[in-house]
Amino acid sequence: MTTYLATAMPSPEAGTLVEVDFPFGHETTPLAYGVDCEDRLVDRVAEVVPPGLVVVVADRNVAGVANRVRNLLAARGRRSALLTVDATESAKSLATVDELARRALAAGMSRSSSVVSVGGGLVENLAGMLAGLAFRGVPIVHLPTTPVGAFDAVLSRKQAVSLDGVKNALGLFRTPTFVGVDLRWLETVDRTLLMTGLAEMAKNVVAVVPEDAGRFVAAVEGLDADPSGSLMTLLDIGIRAKAPFLAADPDEKGVALVFEYGHTVGHAIETSAVTPRPHGESVGWGMLVAADVARVMTGLNVDAYALHDELLRPLGVVRNAPPDLDVAVVVERALRDNKRGYRPLAEDEVGMVLLADAGRVAGETSVPIVPVPADLVRRCLAQLMEER
Amino acid sequence: MTTYLATAMPSPEAGTLVEVDFPFGHETTPLAYGVDCEDRLVDRVAEVVPPGLVVVVADRNVAGVANRVRNLLAARGRRSALLTVDATESAKSLATVDELARRALAAGMSRSSSVVSVGGGLVENLAGMLAGLAFRGVPIVHLPTTPVGAFDAVLSRKQAVSLDGVKNALGLFRTPTFVGVDLRWLETVDRTLLMTGLAEMAKNVVAVVPEDAGRFVAAVEGLDADPSGSLMTLLDIGIRAKAPFLAADPDEKGVALVFEYGHTVGHAIETSAVTPRPHGESVGWGMLVAADVARVMTGLNVDAYALHDELLRPLGVVRNAPPDLDVAVVVERALRDNKRGYRPLAEDEVGMVLLADAGRVAGETSVPIVPVPADLVRRCLAQLMEER
Repeated sequence: MTTYLATAMPSPEAGTLVEVDFPFGHETTPLAYGVDCEDRLVDRVAEVVPPGLVVVVADRNVAGVANRVRNLLAARGRRSALLTVDATESAKSLATVDELARRALAAGMSRSSSVVSVGGGLVENLAGMLAGLAFRGVPIVHLPTTPVGAFDAVLSRKQAVSLDGVKNALGLFRTPTFVGVDLRWLETVDRTLLMTGLAEMAKNVVAVVPEDAGRFVAAVEGLDADPSGSLMTLLDIGIRAKAPFLAADPDEKGVALVFEYGHTVGHAIETSAVTPRPHGESVGWGMLVAADVARVMTGLNVDAYALHDELLRPLGVVRNAPPDLDVAVVVERALRDNKRGYRPLAEDEVGMVLLADAGRVAGETSVPIVPVPADLVRRCLAQLMEER
Repeated sequence: MTTYLATAMPSPEAGTLVEVDFPFGHETTPLAYGVDCEDRLVDRVAEVVPPGLVVVVADRNVAGVANRVRNLLAARGRRSALLTVDATESAKSLATVDELARRALAAGMSRSSSVVSVGGGLVENLAGMLAGLAFRGVPIVHLPTTPVGAFDAVLSRKQAVSLDGVKNALGLFRTPTFVGVDLRWLETVDRTLLMTGLAEMAKNVVAVVPEDAGRFVAAVEGLDADPSGSLMTLLDIGIRAKAPFLAADPDEKGVALVFEYGHTVGHAIETSAVTPRPHGESVGWGMLVAADVARVMTGLNVDAYALHDELLRPLGVVRNAPPDLDVAVVVERALRDNKRGYRPLAEDEVGMVLLADAGRVAGETSVPIVPVPADLVRRCLAQLMEER
């Protein structure tokens, strides 16, 4: 087990970088972080990418960061091209990847190019797909500018786009060559989006590291008073939660499926709510439904059940204010979820990760997907809506 | 080294299967062949694929074969869906893969599905891309119905589509789970397409197994009198040529780049000829240009030079009848070829595989891409056109 799991990771001094090795199976990816450290990060990027054009795929909202990165690359003699994208769910498609590839090729992308993502989880995925497919694979570097991108999405080899309402139906695996985070970038994220986005991390806490629940809530509540310190704590929790699972299961088809907690119903809500809700918030609602299901199916104890609310409430995911949704549509979507196929499921069963306790999945740890009667999901969703 | 390289592979009796293990690095893929053996092949397919929907991606022209395969699958209790495609170069795009995925999902494709290709190299690639991306990878089985598909394209993990005239700019690697060939399927291919398609094999003979030149020409000339025997010989030559290279270099980024012989100029001709020519024929022309270049650059001896014509002439690729093409456009395309990046190349250099002798590449064997002045390529192409 990597040493940084024993103690909290060091907090960097301004302008300096701390670098740890994040494990993906037997490989590791260098993950560097700091505060006000763009210059040092780009030093490292220039070291690790091949000599050809650097294709920067950036969220339009952080084009400023992307352009600073490009200028720093140019100062190191590296050519780059900027492709901006709108980070919306509808843009998470193979058509967008095709269009990005077309623009990259026109800009001079070759087999000795690399792709650098600048943005959140959605941009990381689009850039990862481009890097995975271009000339059958060029290196991908992630510079996440959102907390969820930095603390969760980037700690995965999985890249994907959606298709006809089935989230992440098309994808591939790509181990990042390097991940670099300037914690300062993360402070600029819209507060509402940040809070709901952190539901992904609340999920990791309740499912994997419940002992970090207190630190998590304190960090969330301290974001205004001490943003850098709070973000540093969240990064630490994110890495501690994911590292052992990704080391054991780099393709996330076994024990690491625990990170799909809340996602079956969450994805269904995300793609069918009358007023669209962000991914993180949808996962939060998916967790609450999963907790209700587990009360019935796995006898989830009251403390673990309540922990869901304790972690999600500070993020604004509160039981009595669920999104406006059609229960029948959500259940139908959940029945088509892309986790079908991990386990034999009957036509009227939904495949879900359930908890037996905080930090412990129900069923087989090796593939923690449990068949849940669609009718039970329907009842739990209806109950959630009644509390509205 | 696998034993079947020592002697010719056994010719199967009608209705029976012969199965060999084809190596991809440390993995092997079972490759089964026979004559009038559809029933036995589908037995094997049903054994190796997972329990979900079998998505059959078929060339519209061989929908008959695909439907027989589907009926045989149904008789074994396996559900399948048929997606037909037009096997044209313009269909070899990410948009087609997107559309196939959409149709497959609507038909019920899930994580426990598999993809079966029925057709030639182009359909194999589209199906391979679909299998590689669907739920981040489901098994792919190839049932090639063209000689080039069976003897060359299928003996590779590389899958790709083209983008804006750059051949195979987007792709991925996918080791086939099973390859099955009924030699009877191969007899139905249009004779002109078959002959030009065999240029891919002529390339393998001159570049890798020149000792098989006599058997190759005899098999080509015997296709009418003894189709099964001739096709059996060609399959044997195809496997013998590729197996040792794919065992050593499963991603074809090193020694196996030898199979790109003729492809730099060939791809450029294929995508820019005034009257489009098939891939195989274009590769044939690319080989002739590469031989002319090698006469100047590597001192290719006269016998090896002449062997190109001896192997290609029976296929109808004859020096005095090149396609109608604009030399400047072909050179411009060759300069943008996707082999750029294997080697440092100047702006006015084309990356090509060249031979120093029959069966021996010029330059470094480990990455046999040689920088060739664009002007020399231009002169050799112009000379080819003057002989027209």
